[in-house]
Amino acid sequence: MADKIKVALVGIGKIAVDQHVPSIAASSDWTLAATVSRSGTVDGVPAYTDIHTMLADRPEIKVVSLCLPPVPRFAYAAACLRAGRHVMLEKPPGATLAEVYALKALARDAGQTLFATWHSRMAKGVQAAKAALAGKTIESGHIDWKENVRQWHPYQDWVFEPGGLGVLDPGVNALSILTEILPTPIHLESATLHTPANRQTPVQADVKFLNGITASFDWLKEGSQIWEQRFSTTDGTTVELLEGGNRCIVDGDEQPLTELGEYPALYALMSLLVRSRTSDVDLSPMVHVSDIMTLAHRKTAPAFEWSS
Amino acid sequence: MADKIKVALVGIGKIAVDQHVPSIAASSDWTLAATVSRSGTVDGVPAYTDIHTMLADRPEIKVVSLCLPPVPRFAYAAACLRAGRHVMLEKPPGATLAEVYALKALARDAGQTLFATWHSRMAKGVQAAKAALAGKTIESGHIDWKENVRQWHPYQDWVFEPGGLGVLDPGVNALSILTEILPTPIHLESATLHTPANRQTPVQADVKFLNGITASFDWLKEGSQIWEQRFSTTDGTTVELLEGGNRCIVDGDEQPLTELGEYPALYALMSLLVRSRTSDVDLSPMVHVSDIMTLAHRKTAPAFEWSS
Repeated sequence: MADKIKVALVGIGKIAVDQHVPSIAASSDWTLAATVSRSGTVDGVPAYTDIHTMLADRPEIKVVSLCLPPVPRFAYAAACLRAGRHVMLEKPPGATLAEVYALKALARDAGQTLFATWHSRMAKGVQAAKAALAGKTIESGHIDWKENVRQWHPYQDWVFEPGGLGVLDPGVNALSILTEILPTPIHLESATLHTPANRQTPVQADVKFLNGITASFDWLKEGSQIWEQRFSTTDGTTVELLEGGNRCIVDGDEQPLTELGEYPALYALMSLLVRSRTSDVDLSPMVHVSDIMTLAHRKTAPAFEWSS
Repeated sequence: MADKIKVALVGIGKIAVDQHVPSIAASSDWTLAATVSRSGTVDGVPAYTDIHTMLADRPEIKVVSLCLPPVPRFAYAAACLRAGRHVMLEKPPGATLAEVYALKALARDAGQTLFATWHSRMAKGVQAAKAALAGKTIESGHIDWKENVRQWHPYQDWVFEPGGLGVLDPGVNALSILTEILPTPIHLESATLHTPANRQTPVQADVKFLNGITASFDWLKEGSQIWEQRFSTTDGTTVELLEGGNRCIVDGDEQPLTELGEYPALYALMSLLVRSRTSDVDLSPMVHVSDIMTLAHRKTAPAFEWSS
């Protein structure tokens, strides 16, 4: 068996603890060799509070996985690439498109791997949906992506700060699946954003793309949470992608699923990218979010407080 | 002398009449062979009201120049490319980034030229500023781009509709110069947008990029109009680009200027692109605008009316 790859995890918050740490622990490819965080640590793993100290102290750690919010992420990613490390980015890969183009160029010039991850693309039914739509013409499609921000991001005020994207933070997950499975590229026709009077980012978005594809994003959904996409094609095929992409039904029949969960699949792909020294940076989900933020009609929604 | 290239001009509004028509008339490369517009015409030039009719009736017209507002532009551009025509796009090249990536792919697949123009890049002092900054490190820079929307876009309500970009419509001119002359790419750090209570797009923007570069965009400036960019480099060079890029001063000395005006220079470049069947689609100015629209802190400004 090949040596395990040592990875440092930066930003020990909810997503790191819930997803990255167990995925690394369960993998035969990876070992968690350090953490960098001002607040969180992982039992038994050397903990740093400063990225530059970690990079200087631990030259044997060749891969850094960044789980910080998007705004501070660029400086960390650039520092790691300049220090000769491969970098894995949580979604969205940055606060701006321009910075991710810059990181892509930096990785290319340094000969390092950059992986801009989209975890929802790894959901177990996505490849079945992609195969079912391949070569076909979409007649219509609809995304319902409706969850409760109070349940999934409790008291994380940054999601409502500029750059936090609001409901387009889960929305970009839906768009990362959409851009993976559609047979041809699409672009935005119109959108409406509803932003709470006391916040900077939207809690609800209605989006219309070309080709009859629409999306309803809602971050105030109580009760059952809905992450579903449905498509029909001009030759009469229907494709339903349910449970955040983890269940796929084509013409009424349940489809076989891929094996690994989302984050284990991301780390499996990252190990392949590192070993082959290639990058994977597809910005199309983020381009659609930027287009929505640029083109949308904006409406004011009632003020949002964490305790309703 | 080579035959003149026949061009159809689509969207006969202010920018077409003020800039495109005289630039084509003054050029030995071009002849205006048709117009397409629901409202405007040009004396002595066959006028169509429908793009598809013109494309079908006039197979000898190989180039179409689109002066429509950004939102309807995609459908026209795609129709022209699919009909085997070369296409020249006014700035910004579309309402969304995704659609311009799609047009770029369409032009490439069709073997046609697509030119996403940025007229301000052709201002007469821009190349002198670029040469003065080449190979240097920017220490600081500031853009003042302050004009009166009532003077330049009188009663053009579309500039305040979603997709019209507001003050970032002239702002993208400044950014098209900035991205042309800077020696290294930059990205947005923060921005504040001021949007009138009764409108959808901003009238004022304060923008901060990395590398100490800032910009003040104002669309309510009365009296003298200001389009200026100033830079200092770590080796002590100062570069001033004044009058919308048409005057360049380096370390206090006036610099020699390029010869052609902005639109004549665009048509001169388009004739080269068409003859060599190459495209020129640089989206970086539009990427910065999208980043500003995505990342900005938004504030409400007083209501805007055309008659103040």
